[in-house]
Amino acid sequence: MAKPQLHVSLSPALLHLEEVNSSIVVIIDVLRATSTIATALYNGAKAIVPVDSVAECIRIGKQIEAITAGERDGRIAEGLQYGNSPFDYPPDFIKDKVLVLTTTNGTKLLHMALEKSARGIITGSFPNLDAVCTYLKNAGENIILGCAAWKDRINIEDSLFAGAVIENVKDHFEIKGDAASIAHGLYIKAKDDLFGFMKINNASHYHRLMGFGLEKDIRYCLTPNGANILPIFNDGKLVKG
Amino acid sequence: MAKPQLHVSLSPALLHLEEVNSSIVVIIDVLRATSTIATALYNGAKAIVPVDSVAECIRIGKQIEAITAGERDGRIAEGLQYGNSPFDYPPDFIKDKVLVLTTTNGTKLLHMALEKSARGIITGSFPNLDAVCTYLKNAGENIILGCAAWKDRINIEDSLFAGAVIENVKDHFEIKGDAASIAHGLYIKAKDDLFGFMKINNASHYHRLMGFGLEKDIRYCLTPNGANILPIFNDGKLVKG
Repeated sequence: MAKPQLHVSLSPALLHLEEVNSSIVVIIDVLRATSTIATALYNGAKAIVPVDSVAECIRIGKQIEAITAGERDGRIAEGLQYGNSPFDYPPDFIKDKVLVLTTTNGTKLLHMALEKSARGIITGSFPNLDAVCTYLKNAGENIILGCAAWKDRINIEDSLFAGAVIENVKDHFEIKGDAASIAHGLYIKAKDDLFGFMKINNASHYHRLMGFGLEKDIRYCLTPNGANILPIFNDGKLVKG
Repeated sequence: MAKPQLHVSLSPALLHLEEVNSSIVVIIDVLRATSTIATALYNGAKAIVPVDSVAECIRIGKQIEAITAGERDGRIAEGLQYGNSPFDYPPDFIKDKVLVLTTTNGTKLLHMALEKSARGIITGSFPNLDAVCTYLKNAGENIILGCAAWKDRINIEDSLFAGAVIENVKDHFEIKGDAASIAHGLYIKAKDDLFGFMKINNASHYHRLMGFGLEKDIRYCLTPNGANILPIFNDGKLVKG
């Protein structure tokens, strides 16, 4: 039997090239949305509702009496309660709660995948790398690794995660397209020191978050399997798969 | 004085992210359009008119009594006279002639740059790498390295050429964005054997052209400075700069 295909979309602006409606889409927003989503669910959150604006976050937060979270320019956005850091959601705080999280890039891509009728949507990040790979290997479906990027600009960290997934699952899929080769090669080159690679390659998000004093967040978000669960999108929210 | 900026657009679908109207755009279509353009001009062609369809190629070819060229699926397109190979245009054939060339991806990107009022448009390929780099270093302008890609899909060979330019000019520019870092890293990894790198990375165009028996073309198009002139777009055509 032919292996299913794995494609990589390095930016939401390239998603139109992919056959979304016959694929499972992995939403990748390494710094920090999908890392924080994995962490909050791992620490016991009941569900996470991803929304694309602060206003929507406030509205839904009130409606379902949930925690609201999101940042703009490195600070908690006005009207919201918590930030985007995975460290904001320890078990004793987040257990059994619902989190409404506003993120720009990840949520945009998730909604695009939804509108294009993806066969399934999950989120991926280094903290839940193995859970994602195990799920993909067992799924038997075509896969699109969808990098959320930054306002459509390709970024290194999401590309690295796509490469890490390919390295883990490559025997189970037909890896398609030059973007997948590029992401895989990038990860192979970087894998022994992802943090150092981000630094020497002058990654734009590395600088942005370091400027906010968030080295601890970056290091956590580049470390595999610290929150090894599978967030699956279902009926408007991400839940533990 | 601040250095001018250099950005990389890995696909025409990402060009909207760049400030085209304050930049010189380098059109990159390594296999084979911009390699053939450099070669034909180097061998004495008076001008090259890039067009985006076979019908337009035939129409303009008749109108200005020029040579028409272009391929579809690896063969000379019906109604045209010559192919897309740089080897189709030796000096004794092309000298002082005008060539109307239809290419899908390169011409599309060139027209996009034109519509967005680029400050200048040149074409780049390994055969004219040094001429491009010398021009860029002297220009003192912001630069966009625009990969033509394949129907918007990122490809390895155009990314490699962007990386090669960066390696050559990096001291003269502020290199901006993660896409530039990725292209540069790709080139550094590949530079000792570009052909071998295309092969082991399973590059989609490598396979396509090898399938047409065009190994000689690929090797030529990946070799620096075999046709070291600068094609500049001016008034609808590419001429020697």
